[in-house]
Amino acid sequence: MADTKPVVAFLGPKASYTHQATVSSFPEKEYDLQPQTSIEDVFAAVQSGTASHGVVPFENSSNGSVVFTLDLFADRDGKYSDILVEGEIYLPVRHCLLGHPSTNTNTNTTSRSGSPTKRTDLPWRRLQNDSPNISGAVTPTQAAPNPTKPKTAPAQDITHIKKLYSHPQAWGQCHLFLSTYLKSTERQDVSSTSKAAELVAQDTTGTSAAISSKIAAEMNGLSVLAEGIEDREGNSTRFFILRHAASPSPTPPPSIDPSHFKTLISFTVSHTSPGALADSLAVFKAHDLNLTSINTRPSGEGGRAWQYIFFVEVMGRKEGEGEGGKVNEALRELGGVCRGWRWLGSWENKLLAEKNGGKNGELK
Amino acid sequence: MADTKPVVAFLGPKASYTHQATVSSFPEKEYDLQPQTSIEDVFAAVQSGTASHGVVPFENSSNGSVVFTLDLFADRDGKYSDILVEGEIYLPVRHCLLGHPSTNTNTNTTSRSGSPTKRTDLPWRRLQNDSPNISGAVTPTQAAPNPTKPKTAPAQDITHIKKLYSHPQAWGQCHLFLSTYLKSTERQDVSSTSKAAELVAQDTTGTSAAISSKIAAEMNGLSVLAEGIEDREGNSTRFFILRHAASPSPTPPPSIDPSHFKTLISFTVSHTSPGALADSLAVFKAHDLNLTSINTRPSGEGGRAWQYIFFVEVMGRKEGEGEGGKVNEALRELGGVCRGWRWLGSWENKLLAEKNGGKNGELK
Repeated sequence: MADTKPVVAFLGPKASYTHQATVSSFPEKEYDLQPQTSIEDVFAAVQSGTASHGVVPFENSSNGSVVFTLDLFADRDGKYSDILVEGEIYLPVRHCLLGHPSTNTNTNTTSRSGSPTKRTDLPWRRLQNDSPNISGAVTPTQAAPNPTKPKTAPAQDITHIKKLYSHPQAWGQCHLFLSTYLKSTERQDVSSTSKAAELVAQDTTGTSAAISSKIAAEMNGLSVLAEGIEDREGNSTRFFILRHAASPSPTPPPSIDPSHFKTLISFTVSHTSPGALADSLAVFKAHDLNLTSINTRPSGEGGRAWQYIFFVEVMGRKEGEGEGGKVNEALRELGGVCRGWRWLGSWENKLLAEKNGGKNGELK
Repeated sequence: MADTKPVVAFLGPKASYTHQATVSSFPEKEYDLQPQTSIEDVFAAVQSGTASHGVVPFENSSNGSVVFTLDLFADRDGKYSDILVEGEIYLPVRHCLLGHPSTNTNTNTTSRSGSPTKRTDLPWRRLQNDSPNISGAVTPTQAAPNPTKPKTAPAQDITHIKKLYSHPQAWGQCHLFLSTYLKSTERQDVSSTSKAAELVAQDTTGTSAAISSKIAAEMNGLSVLAEGIEDREGNSTRFFILRHAASPSPTPPPSIDPSHFKTLISFTVSHTSPGALADSLAVFKAHDLNLTSINTRPSGEGGRAWQYIFFVEVMGRKEGEGEGGKVNEALRELGGVCRGWRWLGSWENKLLAEKNGGKNGELK
């Protein structure tokens, strides 16, 4: 018994960004980390109790919400009624272009060993020079908040790349690099960025590349053809740590103010009562609970189209049943204006914790 | 001049659902319909004036919003500042499994010509009978609002199918059918459902299948292995008709009440003012303007993560500058509580038009 480690289910495979996030909160010395093939499998493992915790992606700073995760919280079939969020993890996401070095010899470019032989003739350097829009050093600062040029250039020749593999979320995060350097290259979606690296490692033609992490390059023996190819500085993904409602909830240190927590709530509104959404959000405002996110998904209720379930995150913590606290009061009041709601967990706001009390991350 | 037809750009290729929606509003006799390879290309064609109108998908009743379209309306780089929505099209989406008939002979199943030789021994019929959960006739009615079983069964043997092609949106719409009949079949995302049918038509092994439309089966000489495989009755997609702000806006018939229109508005709120989102939505409520949708996307502003742009649709029509009307008044007031807003068009509510004044489609 003593050497049985608690199981943590995460969206795999190994070396995925979710794996990196999981390791940062659940050291492998103390936990048995088990990769799952889908986000739903993570929910199922926590609901059934085969895992004490689960880790799933929730939101990316460039791409927005992960709709698969929202749909599992929507729980239209009542399969995951005991899933609660216990914590969040922010992970900086730095994408790389991984592949085999170019073997192009007719352009005096890099040799198979990867060392450039005549730098000034490299075709990718010509590409850079031909295009007045590409400085290779554009950083989105306050002066240039919306980058229109990639912030990095290839580190090696990439003219041999004919096919790209990645997770669908990655294309949107690397739009500027791809549209500048690999505009008409064929793209294939795969289930994860680490799977993409595996496929490229197996490609004996050497003409495919993956958008994946540096860790995946090491694990698969691939070269980093370009590093940091995401459009924006600060590209990061937020993950949720899931637990079963019946499992013990960690007691927050009394030194942490309830406003330094976040709470996730889902609710539906009546389709015949005007202003029900505005009324629902006004409840949180009345209790001085700031919203940090709002999302909506088709509710699927009654088999009818064009009806929605709403998800809001507010700054605050739900206390025990019958206790006071702003969130508890707001939820009681919410019951009077919405059709139904569900508390999906309260956890410490890691953005505030990291920013030392800064207000970043608030919607309003 | 007289024989130059106005150009309408749509998300192609031909036989795509967007193409079907486009044909329903722009007859090919009167318009030159030009397929584009991406939603952004449709926006660019309308912005530059090479097309008088554009048609893009906006929302599916099962899968929710099309984030690519929202991101183009967010217009973070100011490239599409003259794009307005002029109309909407609802298209019922009935997915089919398209492929080559099975050549399995060891199970006395369908011959290559497609005619079953011994119906009771068909393996797919055994599958049906073996599984108590599959009636093949489950319809999501009020009594069964959230279907957990596919509403249709294969019309032919599909045990030879080893690989599936489709657009990423289609997997989510056909979850029940796929998890019942093709659970561990490899899936490949492609850019459109009609592209999927093309690829399957080219596959000489006959072991791949596409989730696509019946029209695509006819165009590519494929068999319909299963029909209506979407999870829910009433699965439909809403498309927007785009125009340039400088192009003449169609004058609405005076017989149509302004409340039978919809208006799309985007806005951002201050991150330091508590309750700004609730205040913004309260403006619409105060003017008795019901919301029909709300969406949010990362704003990308100031290079900072975790800030958002909001999109709302309200029931009502913006009148000319300086004129009255609820929407005009609400927008003036909105300017006082949000940081910035943009009117993205007003058009006739086709859901109301079809439902004869019904309230379907309202959020609240």
